[in-house]
Amino acid sequence: MTGALPPDVRVGIGDDAAVIRTRTAGSDWIVTTDLLAEHVHFTRTTTPFFDLGYKSAAANLSDLAAMGATPRFLLVAIALPSSITTAEVTTLYRGLNACCRPHGVCVIGGDTSASRSDLFITITAIGQVASGRAVLRRGARVGDALYVSGTIGDSLAGLRLLQATGRRASGISTTHADKLIKRHRRPTARVALGAALARARLATAMLDLSDGLSGDLPHLCRNSQVGATVDATQLPISRALKAYADTTHQSVVDLALQGGEDYELLFTVAPPNERAVAALAKQLRVPLTRIGRIVPRGQGLTLCNADGTSQRWTVTAYRHFEQQTSPTTSATTKRRSTSRIAPRT
Amino acid sequence: MTGALPPDVRVGIGDDAAVIRTRTAGSDWIVTTDLLAEHVHFTRTTTPFFDLGYKSAAANLSDLAAMGATPRFLLVAIALPSSITTAEVTTLYRGLNACCRPHGVCVIGGDTSASRSDLFITITAIGQVASGRAVLRRGARVGDALYVSGTIGDSLAGLRLLQATGRRASGISTTHADKLIKRHRRPTARVALGAALARARLATAMLDLSDGLSGDLPHLCRNSQVGATVDATQLPISRALKAYADTTHQSVVDLALQGGEDYELLFTVAPPNERAVAALAKQLRVPLTRIGRIVPRGQGLTLCNADGTSQRWTVTAYRHFEQQTSPTTSATTKRRSTSRIAPRT
Repeated sequence: MTGALPPDVRVGIGDDAAVIRTRTAGSDWIVTTDLLAEHVHFTRTTTPFFDLGYKSAAANLSDLAAMGATPRFLLVAIALPSSITTAEVTTLYRGLNACCRPHGVCVIGGDTSASRSDLFITITAIGQVASGRAVLRRGARVGDALYVSGTIGDSLAGLRLLQATGRRASGISTTHADKLIKRHRRPTARVALGAALARARLATAMLDLSDGLSGDLPHLCRNSQVGATVDATQLPISRALKAYADTTHQSVVDLALQGGEDYELLFTVAPPNERAVAALAKQLRVPLTRIGRIVPRGQGLTLCNADGTSQRWTVTAYRHFEQQTSPTTSATTKRRSTSRIAPRT
Repeated sequence: MTGALPPDVRVGIGDDAAVIRTRTAGSDWIVTTDLLAEHVHFTRTTTPFFDLGYKSAAANLSDLAAMGATPRFLLVAIALPSSITTAEVTTLYRGLNACCRPHGVCVIGGDTSASRSDLFITITAIGQVASGRAVLRRGARVGDALYVSGTIGDSLAGLRLLQATGRRASGISTTHADKLIKRHRRPTARVALGAALARARLATAMLDLSDGLSGDLPHLCRNSQVGATVDATQLPISRALKAYADTTHQSVVDLALQGGEDYELLFTVAPPNERAVAALAKQLRVPLTRIGRIVPRGQGLTLCNADGTSQRWTVTAYRHFEQQTSPTTSATTKRRSTSRIAPRT
């Protein structure tokens, strides 16, 4: 799809299955699957077809980045209602390829089906990481610094702007509005950062922010059996989000905590490695902000406010089973439901 | 899900992605994805939840078997309408596991989403095969014998019985009806056969019959750039299908040619290896029937009838985009659509 297949793909699309050669040992395969449902994770009103393809790919590349893996291949299964034209599907694939191409990722398989009503896209992403170097959610230790990449909350603000009657309704500048909307529609998967953190063994635990800091930090803490304190004054806020919060009279901290689909990386770093993380941020030109510390599990999750007060963490991430109209990723439901329905014994 | 994870799975469900260790070189990975849509590929009326899970898994294991691969892992993404209860989902997963367990296949990832209307299941299956041994669709040579495993047409008859007002409407015995219905609801993926054919390098080309012989033989021929002659008198017909055809006054040959979802293997064998194939059939206790020969492409596809006449092949496999209520697998649309929509350049 994105040019010639890489040499380790013996067969791509067109047979019963794709064939990937494994000529050398020494690397692990990372595999993830995500299902995006219309009116649950997206609407065609707020997400044009190109962006839908782009974002579907980005969400999966982000899952691989959060493991420290280098993305290699996608398989794309899509269920199409008859209301969607071939041109629209082509546009969706163009968006998907636009996200994949810079990373050298190619589509090696897929399936296309009819759908009676809504559009469904399931992407399976496959990546590679040096043997044993995958960064899991369970490695955070007490005393580790808690970092987040980029800025957070932008995607939620972008979505709210799209849902409003007009972009100017909020009163913020077009430049700021466009920036927020772009973050919602064409998120960046932090592929180079994730791989670099894994390569240099800098991150002790990592995940990507699909449910928002408020929803995802508890995942990291539960998996690592630790607590955390987060300094509200240190949350990385873009100027665009600040402008949006000011003009709409919303709390910028709330937006930053609750906003999902930023696809930034949240990771923990042992104190001796904090200097190396600062150097990596410079090298990759990615803002990396220390927003808190890992504490013993008994201390739970705490948010320290600007006024010196602190409060217990409140999980306010989307739950799309309850809020079926809220576009959001399904990471929370994903792991919980799959585990609950099909427990390993 | 199906007991402890195998030693090469470092992480299963519960992180951003699964991690598969590759400690040794010498084997290739085979990956396939299939999307099953309610009212397109199945209905809850004709397929109970247990069978739906079973069959979804079997269809994917069959794709791997058709490559000669040993199935290892599944990822299961599912979009659930609110009308489906947790108990029903649990039953679906029980069926899925019942199909996977005998093959030692485990679920290493997944995603669960809401759906506004229909049920959608996307399964990604991953298998392994000795390096370079995957059996593709493109290896058939002129003179090769054309074989099919088991019997064909049974699944279609089972579906028609289920769609009829009562099983006895056809006038065939309950034993025969139950056998046909079971073939439709709980198909067998020919995993051991596929792997044995690849291991011994006996098959020059192979695919699984999901669209029926009529639809799938042209795939094999197109990929291999050959033609084929099929002897209608040699098609393997079960006694149950014969009874069904007789009592419903249908052509048993038509049922055998058109019936999809049998998940038998269709493969080609070089003449010197035909004796070894006969020995393998005995060893595995799987009927393997030589139904025809590969001929030059210019001769096209021909069906030789019992009365000595012959006719050009007519493709009568399901096209689910046109026949949205016909339960069928999506192999045809799958490869064509994906290739068409997203051509490799």
